[in-house]
Amino acid sequence: MTKRLYNAKIITMVEGEDIFDGEIHIDGNRITYVGPATEGGSFDEEIDCEGNVLLPGFKNAHTHSGMTAFRSLADDLNLQDWLNNEIFPREARMTPEDVYWLSQLAYLEYLTSGITACGDMYLTPESILDASVDFGMRCQMVSGLNKFGPTLEVLERRYNELNGKNELVGFLMGVHAEYTCDKELLEKVSELIHKYKAPLYTHMSETQTEHEECKQRYGMTPMAFFDSLGLWDFGGCIYHGVWVEDSDMEIMKKRGIRVVSNPGSNTKLASGIAPVSKYLEKGIEVALGTDGPSSNNCLDFFREMFLVTGLAKLRDKDPKAVDAMGVLKMACVNGAHAMGLFDNDALAVGKLADIIMIDLYQPNMRPILNISKNIVYSGSKTNIKMTMINGKVLYKNGQFSDTIDIDAIYDKCEEITKRLK
Amino acid sequence: MTKRLYNAKIITMVEGEDIFDGEIHIDGNRITYVGPATEGGSFDEEIDCEGNVLLPGFKNAHTHSGMTAFRSLADDLNLQDWLNNEIFPREARMTPEDVYWLSQLAYLEYLTSGITACGDMYLTPESILDASVDFGMRCQMVSGLNKFGPTLEVLERRYNELNGKNELVGFLMGVHAEYTCDKELLEKVSELIHKYKAPLYTHMSETQTEHEECKQRYGMTPMAFFDSLGLWDFGGCIYHGVWVEDSDMEIMKKRGIRVVSNPGSNTKLASGIAPVSKYLEKGIEVALGTDGPSSNNCLDFFREMFLVTGLAKLRDKDPKAVDAMGVLKMACVNGAHAMGLFDNDALAVGKLADIIMIDLYQPNMRPILNISKNIVYSGSKTNIKMTMINGKVLYKNGQFSDTIDIDAIYDKCEEITKRLK
Repeated sequence: MTKRLYNAKIITMVEGEDIFDGEIHIDGNRITYVGPATEGGSFDEEIDCEGNVLLPGFKNAHTHSGMTAFRSLADDLNLQDWLNNEIFPREARMTPEDVYWLSQLAYLEYLTSGITACGDMYLTPESILDASVDFGMRCQMVSGLNKFGPTLEVLERRYNELNGKNELVGFLMGVHAEYTCDKELLEKVSELIHKYKAPLYTHMSETQTEHEECKQRYGMTPMAFFDSLGLWDFGGCIYHGVWVEDSDMEIMKKRGIRVVSNPGSNTKLASGIAPVSKYLEKGIEVALGTDGPSSNNCLDFFREMFLVTGLAKLRDKDPKAVDAMGVLKMACVNGAHAMGLFDNDALAVGKLADIIMIDLYQPNMRPILNISKNIVYSGSKTNIKMTMINGKVLYKNGQFSDTIDIDAIYDKCEEITKRLK
Repeated sequence: MTKRLYNAKIITMVEGEDIFDGEIHIDGNRITYVGPATEGGSFDEEIDCEGNVLLPGFKNAHTHSGMTAFRSLADDLNLQDWLNNEIFPREARMTPEDVYWLSQLAYLEYLTSGITACGDMYLTPESILDASVDFGMRCQMVSGLNKFGPTLEVLERRYNELNGKNELVGFLMGVHAEYTCDKELLEKVSELIHKYKAPLYTHMSETQTEHEECKQRYGMTPMAFFDSLGLWDFGGCIYHGVWVEDSDMEIMKKRGIRVVSNPGSNTKLASGIAPVSKYLEKGIEVALGTDGPSSNNCLDFFREMFLVTGLAKLRDKDPKAVDAMGVLKMACVNGAHAMGLFDNDALAVGKLADIIMIDLYQPNMRPILNISKNIVYSGSKTNIKMTMINGKVLYKNGQFSDTIDIDAIYDKCEEITKRLK
């Protein structure tokens, strides 16, 4: 199946390349040409981009997709009430099939927001894998192991079984967080990490309380504590990183640790503002995530892009903090890297065809003075004219692909939500 | 012209009324029925709402619509560089016709965001009036008088001539800000205020510098200084109010002063976070505004709604701060009051038909556990299925009314922007 996307403005996100007018050719799931207009030729499908912008898809590098069941359930509550009284009792009753449908509800929203891949830490990865493959979403599942479950044996089995099962999905080694694991468990995870030379993924220093309690417990920050256990020996990534200290950043630099910032979630849960400018100064790669739909609650990358720069400007008291191209890089490029993906971070020959089209014929994109600034500061979901994952168009002009049964997803999710009440 | 909007969920925003299933009837520009389903009857037009939500339109209570020319022109700069080097020299070359087209570009975006009225402080109100009336936007123009212009005579003439000229528009007495007016000028404005018993509108305490400099200049906060000149004797409204002090809030309470918070702009320009919870505690009515498209840059009320609660949560370190219904009230009700409008703040018999329809068949509105929370925390422009102003449908299913010439607006604005470069 070959495709030609022509009459486009192209932002490749390849370092040093400027926006230009041209076209992209695709064979199967890979890009075969990116450059100026050609004579055309023979393609199975040709899409006239009508002067709109092609960009690598946004990468939602940290989420819990299946938590759609809890959207608007328990906002305006404090975190502990929310978790203990509302979320945990319901999660205990969720089935793998529930996670299948609830994840697909999130994927629908990802498509409307130009998100072409997600890093998903949630229950029952086996059914997340099915959800992703059936839907066509690229998904890097992440283990959320903690002292309540599952076992290390399950983690290792999943790592071996789920990786390589389908080109759209992968399974990363992770633990939920320092405060939900005890030291013995983390030591055993470290053994696994070393056995497979695997990078580690975890929530870290999201709230000040959690960060400070770790220091009281071990006399070290969570980052330093994990380092002392060898958990960073093969790199990895932390989610949130709101309360990290300068010394933590030195460890991150030394170990090549990335950070996924979740500004929407950190705002709504009052967790704080991450030190994004400082990460960038130190050369630490920052990616973006929506976090789960019960803590954000929107799965909207335009919100995250505005917030990551806006909150940095507020924190630094400096309107120059974190410029628009830097934000696009976080959303399109760094997010891929943070999930361990290096083949879908740019529009270039040989890369995966994870491509979005930004509609310039919406009033919020006018006038056209600076397209990257328009996208980051003025963009909204109404600007997503097309979302393509792995060479397949799954969303176009406000319509979902007919391979997706929206009514079934909506109905099943309403049913599940009622049952979990 | 009579209309029936049936098969809807209705949030009237009348104090104490819950959401219910029903319908709305309209005759001309007024609502004639709000209640449960009827037998129908004879209407010029019937709209099946397909189970979606009807809500009073959002009120953008502070903006500078015509600044669309400067969107993405000069972001990531500090405020003084931005104003002096980029904005002022261009504004000096703008014509009334430029303002006409540039305002309509903003109005297009307002429609996509469910905004049915705006409080617009900008150059050449005569051409803003034409823009609003020709387009069908409800607009309360506000004088931005300052020491650079126009004269008090012009202000008084506009006040007399522009009010009552068309049912869609009004003209409010205002000054740009304390720091752009000298004391003598403000004293003369106070005389006018007293002559017409008019409330006063102004930017106030947006930045810490401006707030502190006033205290150095006059030994009083801007709020107290204006009070000492009698400028609040007939009420009024301040824009921003980020740095107000407790004593200022006492004056506001005493004088019935409202505040329009502009969280998007305050974030992007690093001005700070307004004390919104405190305003609410004191019983001061808070409304919302996008501010101008060169400082925000999006004209998106979903952004403002999320930010006003999110930033309050961050400021207060409390996820319970400013709940969703409180935010909807700011957006739909208080915004009308802040612009001096009391006839378009709710869906009730006799009120103006400024109505929006929220699309529940988008993934970000699912599951349907709590609709007001869905709108405030998860909503986006993609949820605006219809925007009706003064009884006329101007936007529906992503299409603008054919009374609006989008191509002309886009082309003129690109041309103007190029000329002003």
